[in-house]
Amino acid sequence: MTPTITAFANSPDRGAGLARDMRVRWALEEVGQAYDVQLVSFAELKQPDYRTLNPFGKIPAYRDGDLTLFESGAIVFHVAETHAGLLPEDAGARSRAIMWMFAALSTVEPPILDLGVAKLVESKEDWAERRMPLVKDRIRNRLTELSRHMGEAEWLDGAFSAADIIMVHVLLRLGKSGILDEFPAIAAYTARAQARPAYQRAFAAQLAVFTGKT
Amino acid sequence: MTPTITAFANSPDRGAGLARDMRVRWALEEVGQAYDVQLVSFAELKQPDYRTLNPFGKIPAYRDGDLTLFESGAIVFHVAETHAGLLPEDAGARSRAIMWMFAALSTVEPPILDLGVAKLVESKEDWAERRMPLVKDRIRNRLTELSRHMGEAEWLDGAFSAADIIMVHVLLRLGKSGILDEFPAIAAYTARAQARPAYQRAFAAQLAVFTGKT
Repeated sequence: MTPTITAFANSPDRGAGLARDMRVRWALEEVGQAYDVQLVSFAELKQPDYRTLNPFGKIPAYRDGDLTLFESGAIVFHVAETHAGLLPEDAGARSRAIMWMFAALSTVEPPILDLGVAKLVESKEDWAERRMPLVKDRIRNRLTELSRHMGEAEWLDGAFSAADIIMVHVLLRLGKSGILDEFPAIAAYTARAQARPAYQRAFAAQLAVFTGKT
Repeated sequence: MTPTITAFANSPDRGAGLARDMRVRWALEEVGQAYDVQLVSFAELKQPDYRTLNPFGKIPAYRDGDLTLFESGAIVFHVAETHAGLLPEDAGARSRAIMWMFAALSTVEPPILDLGVAKLVESKEDWAERRMPLVKDRIRNRLTELSRHMGEAEWLDGAFSAADIIMVHVLLRLGKSGILDEFPAIAAYTARAQARPAYQRAFAAQLAVFTGKT
């Protein structure tokens, strides 16, 4: 059966690939799993019907037969568990890949999310400009630690895994802030990931929603 | 072999059980797995030696033979995968339990973390007081959604699971903010979890570090 994911009918990033459906599309492309997409409007996300898919009213949700999941991390993990190629077979390496998925979402993403909130939700507040250096420095602290750990490594821990999908997409959400450019090894890491054919297919698919070329 | 976890030698919450080692202790108690504890100072956390355990310099880290893990979510997941009792056997229910672990960490915890940052790191800033209602309302939005989903359910999705450990501990970090009291069903859910013998043993163990009764 072909799984279905939900995605924004009108992505706020205008096809830049920053919405979280991109992570799931990318994982599905890596393992060669075809999928359908249900586009939802912002209004629909907040309706009771959609809340049965995701009580928090966010994209993406995932349906495959009787199984309904939300949370991009959980969906990518499910795809990785049920297909070959995104988690190492060795038990220790597998546990470390899962650890890096959690690290990307719990340790690296929160300060990056905070930058989004500061820029979008609090941009008109009188403190917005003065608070921004604090918000950005918290991100820099994390990236300094990540960069020190990774060095010039190709991927987070040995072979490419589901953890790299999550981590790279989290990092790409820094967008035009310029912060990624301050960390050349991490910028190279994200560029390496973006060069993967599966990333490019996923990116094209989400962009096509915005350009109307689906 | 007995696994070892790291925990604060001097927990900033003075034994209130809010540090993330509590999640791992609780999971280990639920499955009846004995463990050792390595206490680390704030200074040690930032040293290169500790960074080999966790590049982000945070507690808890976990060592069991050759395996070293960090990230409380990943450690709890590893404990749940390698012991019976914290993840359902049915494949769909298991995927949903994992989903709720990610939801607790990626969707519910970030705004709660933000309250901690606002109270601790930014408390002296001139915007601190005026910004607080925005920070708290983001938490209320999430708890409203969670409460609407859970209703009067005993646990997040059927039987008690690793997801309830993570979610309850995330919610308890609201501490004395009073926000939890605004959501009686969620407050009852956390109280139900805290009444579990495994929670109480874990709580006592981390409190003993602070009171010096280890």
